[in-house]
Amino acid sequence: MQAVRIHDYNQPLKYEQVPDPKITNPYDVIIKVAGAGVCRTDLHIIESIWKESLGDPTLPFIIGHENSGWVQDKGEAITNLSIGDPVILHPLISCGICRACREGNDMHCIAGKFPGLDGTDGGYAQYMKTSARSVVKLEPGVDPISLAPFADAGITAYHAVKKIIPLTYPGSVAVVIGLGGLGHFAVQLLKQMTTAKVVVVDSSSQRGDFARELGADLFISSNPVKELLDYTHGQGADVVLDFVGEKDTPKQGIEMTRKGGTYSIIGYGGNVSPTTLEMISREINIVGNLVGTYNDLVELMELYHQGKVHITSQQFPLKDAQEVLDKLNNGQILGRAVLKPW
Amino acid sequence: MQAVRIHDYNQPLKYEQVPDPKITNPYDVIIKVAGAGVCRTDLHIIESIWKESLGDPTLPFIIGHENSGWVQDKGEAITNLSIGDPVILHPLISCGICRACREGNDMHCIAGKFPGLDGTDGGYAQYMKTSARSVVKLEPGVDPISLAPFADAGITAYHAVKKIIPLTYPGSVAVVIGLGGLGHFAVQLLKQMTTAKVVVVDSSSQRGDFARELGADLFISSNPVKELLDYTHGQGADVVLDFVGEKDTPKQGIEMTRKGGTYSIIGYGGNVSPTTLEMISREINIVGNLVGTYNDLVELMELYHQGKVHITSQQFPLKDAQEVLDKLNNGQILGRAVLKPW
Amino acid sequence: MQAVRIHDYNQPLKYEQVPDPKITNPYDVIIKVAGAGVCRTDLHIIESIWKESLGDPTLPFIIGHENSGWVQDKGEAITNLSIGDPVILHPLISCGICRACREGNDMHCIAGKFPGLDGTDGGYAQYMKTSARSVVKLEPGVDPISLAPFADAGITAYHAVKKIIPLTYPGSVAVVIGLGGLGHFAVQLLKQMTTAKVVVVDSSSQRGDFARELGADLFISSNPVKELLDYTHGQGADVVLDFVGEKDTPKQGIEMTRKGGTYSIIGYGGNVSPTTLEMISREINIVGNLVGTYNDLVELMELYHQGKVHITSQQFPLKDAQEVLDKLNNGQILGRAVLKPW
Amino acid sequence: MQAVRIHDYNQPLKYEQVPDPKITNPYDVIIKVAGAGVCRTDLHIIESIWKESLGDPTLPFIIGHENSGWVQDKGEAITNLSIGDPVILHPLISCGICRACREGNDMHCIAGKFPGLDGTDGGYAQYMKTSARSVVKLEPGVDPISLAPFADAGITAYHAVKKIIPLTYPGSVAVVIGLGGLGHFAVQLLKQMTTAKVVVVDSSSQRGDFARELGADLFISSNPVKELLDYTHGQGADVVLDFVGEKDTPKQGIEMTRKGGTYSIIGYGGNVSPTTLEMISREINIVGNLVGTYNDLVELMELYHQGKVHITSQQFPLKDAQEVLDKLNNGQILGRAVLKPW
Repeated sequence: MQAVRIHDYNQPLKYEQVPDPKITNPYDVIIKVAGAGVCRTDLHIIESIWKESLGDPTLPFIIGHENSGWVQDKGEAITNLSIGDPVILHPLISCGICRACREGNDMHCIAGKFPGLDGTDGGYAQYMKTSARSVVKLEPGVDPISLAPFADAGITAYHAVKKIIPLTYPGSVAVVIGLGGLGHFAVQLLKQMTTAKVVVVDSSSQRGDFARELGADLFISSNPVKELLDYTHGQGADVVLDFVGEKDTPKQGIEMTRKGGTYSIIGYGGNVSPTTLEMISREINIVGNLVGTYNDLVELMELYHQGKVHITSQQFPLKDAQEVLDKLNNGQILGRAVLKPW
Repeated sequence: MQAVRIHDYNQPLKYEQVPDPKITNPYDVIIKVAGAGVCRTDLHIIESIWKESLGDPTLPFIIGHENSGWVQDKGEAITNLSIGDPVILHPLISCGICRACREGNDMHCIAGKFPGLDGTDGGYAQYMKTSARSVVKLEPGVDPISLAPFADAGITAYHAVKKIIPLTYPGSVAVVIGLGGLGHFAVQLLKQMTTAKVVVVDSSSQRGDFARELGADLFISSNPVKELLDYTHGQGADVVLDFVGEKDTPKQGIEMTRKGGTYSIIGYGGNVSPTTLEMISREINIVGNLVGTYNDLVELMELYHQGKVHITSQQFPLKDAQEVLDKLNNGQILGRAVLKPW
Repeated sequence: MQAVRIHDYNQPLKYEQVPDPKITNPYDVIIKVAGAGVCRTDLHIIESIWKESLGDPTLPFIIGHENSGWVQDKGEAITNLSIGDPVILHPLISCGICRACREGNDMHCIAGKFPGLDGTDGGYAQYMKTSARSVVKLEPGVDPISLAPFADAGITAYHAVKKIIPLTYPGSVAVVIGLGGLGHFAVQLLKQMTTAKVVVVDSSSQRGDFARELGADLFISSNPVKELLDYTHGQGADVVLDFVGEKDTPKQGIEMTRKGGTYSIIGYGGNVSPTTLEMISREINIVGNLVGTYNDLVELMELYHQGKVHITSQQFPLKDAQEVLDKLNNGQILGRAVLKPW
Repeated sequence: MQAVRIHDYNQPLKYEQVPDPKITNPYDVIIKVAGAGVCRTDLHIIESIWKESLGDPTLPFIIGHENSGWVQDKGEAITNLSIGDPVILHPLISCGICRACREGNDMHCIAGKFPGLDGTDGGYAQYMKTSARSVVKLEPGVDPISLAPFADAGITAYHAVKKIIPLTYPGSVAVVIGLGGLGHFAVQLLKQMTTAKVVVVDSSSQRGDFARELGADLFISSNPVKELLDYTHGQGADVVLDFVGEKDTPKQGIEMTRKGGTYSIIGYGGNVSPTTLEMISREINIVGNLVGTYNDLVELMELYHQGKVHITSQQFPLKDAQEVLDKLNNGQILGRAVLKPW
């Protein structure tokens, strides 16, 4: 099959012929890939910043961790999937045995594989192997191509929003920093799932209209800390969701957080470095987020089928993967880019 | 009355004659101070590191935020206290009106006063004024002197431990960094209130016996990250409670935290500065802690009355306050020092 | 002033001249009553079914527990209210001292008074005395008359819905039994505060349009258990909120509840009597609801000010109280009836 | 192999020769049974009271739902178990696919099988077939025979206690009704896992010493409602765990429950029938309990390995199953009876 692999860090990806994946385990599933989302994490992988935390993966491997498609082949023990079913994939392959798996926290699996990141072949390809535990069936007849961004950008925004629901109440304020692929899901989800007022912070002032269309109660493009404190009568926000996570945003995010409030990190690349005095004097919390659970993805697809969350994406041929990544890096992608291998 | 006041930052405190406090509000209470705990925060106030976050308090004022005593006088609207009642004081004076107060989070009161810290006179004195909302009655006949350390060291350790109870389960691991005044409460409370295995990390190797007496399952005095990872089969701890919060401990604390785990800050003075990648790749949480709720203090006193938590303290005359602070600064205090104004 | 009192059980209420209430405590507030909601509980009081659980109140007393108005007079210790402020009243007078009050559960106060129910004078009157702890300020300029139903019908529906938020998720199903005063709030609140599909069950088939206008996904007027099981593929609902609570509804409500689900009682008058086998074989929960917290009422008013919840009511002169109760008893009131004493 | 089957309701069980179970699925596991616990539920099955809620199981089948043993054979897909491993079995065979399974609530699996209850062969036998998802490995070298009672009596008590941990605090009161097999675990677990004072209610006055040995703070054998209300200054208990669930105990349990408190049902056989007024006027909760999760059983075994929970049992040959059930019915079993098939 055709696939796109990373051979060296900080080098262009290669579009090339590789062997098709094969079923080797009774719960294996082979997906014919419909769409492969292009994510800033793919850029970070190429930059090697994940290398250490993923245990120095063996190169080359196929990247791509945001995938949808159709069931192409399946292991003999699988009873809940049929060949041809349209599906979307949870990004991890979890063991199903460890404590985390048994309580539903698939992303904390102690033996989890992360295709497209940790050396396991991902979805910038015509076919991809995963496990039955990672497969979410879509409604019959759905075209899975455009849904690929839900598999990572969507689930991650959903998971982060779901975790902060208990912190919100009518009159509370939630801030979304960064109105990109994940952030634009988060605004919609906050409006659907909470009663908080939603404030969007994005340095691109022209995104204000988009923010308001998505339901934002306030858009801020400069002096975010001062503006937010003014809006909240000096108290700060109950929750700040940071989809940027680098440069000034962690510092600003913490300054925007009220007493007892929570600063939640989804975007990454920088440092967060409050003093311990700052952490205790306002008793604030900092929360990390990593994709989500299997049920999170099922719930998100239900919201989609109910028409409550929308996606903006652009499609490109698989062979143009490197070019699309360059566009993403240069801020030239609107919404989410999706690669089509067929 | 006699009291100890701060007149200038980074200067010795002054023991001096000041006017007695007076009832001015129907819910005011004047306490005859039995014991005033001496806390590392008092050193930090003198060093001026709280100055900015407390809005530059007007000097001089009486320091001391950990107090017990007897009701000396009370406002006309108070029906639940009698003159002479032995009492312990919640460290804040909260408004009772704001959302935080109405949900029990006294320490997040938007109009709260913090006697001994924010320019409101505290308890290094013969008498101290507070509000009926801050007064916890002790069992009749109890001698309140030795209980003073519960009013801040105790409540803070209790609050931090109570918050992490839902994160523990049989087989889980909780780490206590720093076996000082607060840490020694935390070890006892973790053993009473959770089923976690308790690991104590303290650089003073001679504290191992004390840790084990308090119930610790493991004591580590060097290479804490490596030792803890070995003990947990490479997974890390479910919860790390850091009672030091400066120098190496925030970095170590985060490295010791397992996937989905929580690093909780009680001690302060330094910085915590993970990368945002570290926060998301293991989906960890950082939690600040600030004293506790009124009910926390009531619950802690109940544990004390049931004989389930013990306190180690040394008593000194009020006039020696500066000398006692110097001893604390030099590591010459065992357990908690308490000043006696009578 | 003019007021309406109960002199004997199962006898008509009397509209009569009574002394004005007076400030006797520093935190007392006298309200000039704008609106007094007429509630089925008022009928139940007259029927004497509350008599035992409220400790046989001394008669006569002024009934009415759902009130709004303006501050007429206030005790000397009150700083957050001004004469003339438009306000709505939390239905209980809580002590502010007990554990329940200190954690925000005003309705569990161990010394709480319940004006209009327990012998304490309520709000079917020109003036009413309460405590500063029970007063929620409305936005300046708001006309409090029509808001009275939020003070009991609203807060109770809000409280019940808020408690079940954690049980809902996209794809979950919540049932509302009874589309009366409380039920019509509940449907709106479920749609605003959760992602559950909302099914309304009401034996009056003509209420289907009203249900759909409020946002219901399905309306059922007959064979509710069968219809609901069909709709949920035989699994049942995640949550059933019963605003009737008598005759067949408790039995039906429990039969509609799925494995691990919750049947929540708001309406009352009958019995709920599952077998213990039924409770354990599906591991279901039964939840009682009593008004709500002070913060619940504040949050509900915020939703109202944001235009997210609407109220239907009819106004009548105070002197017609008994006649209005008779209409309510005969099903002749649309939405909520409100008495106007001025 | 030899096994004990139910052929007709309300008739003696038959000890007889039946075919050995065979592996038919890649995740099947065959256990050589070490111990099969004898439970009051076995009596209830024979009495046919489960018949309807389990869909009228086809007779005959092997009863027994509380089992431990050693891995005898396993499906080809299983990697985490080895032949000969000592194991204890979660009582259900869950699908691993449905929402409940994916969030860890194995007992709510929509396709779950319940060996020994629903027509699936259970463990009153020399061998028993289950699924890899139901197998908890014991520490190497452990003798699984005496541990069988943890597989149902233990997990159920653990699950019920774990659910109420958030309702307890120092000074709270938890009542255990019925000091039988489950109740005697519950007392130990409440003392280990909560700070509540534990009150045991059992009509057999001679069990007082046993209750106190297990850690009970108070034992009541007559007038339980009055005695408990006296002990709690008229407020009632925060939690009542009812391990009897028939005759007077549901009524008493609800009367013992304080405002906002919880009555939790574990034992069954009778009815619980409060008025809806009683449910709402004190805002109480009724909670059903059904065995527990896989992780619950893992956690309970960890507590056992730490020496924090003890078991009392008597062993009998498998062939005497009917006789042992008769003894249980006549109150002649101390602790839990365990059948040995080898």
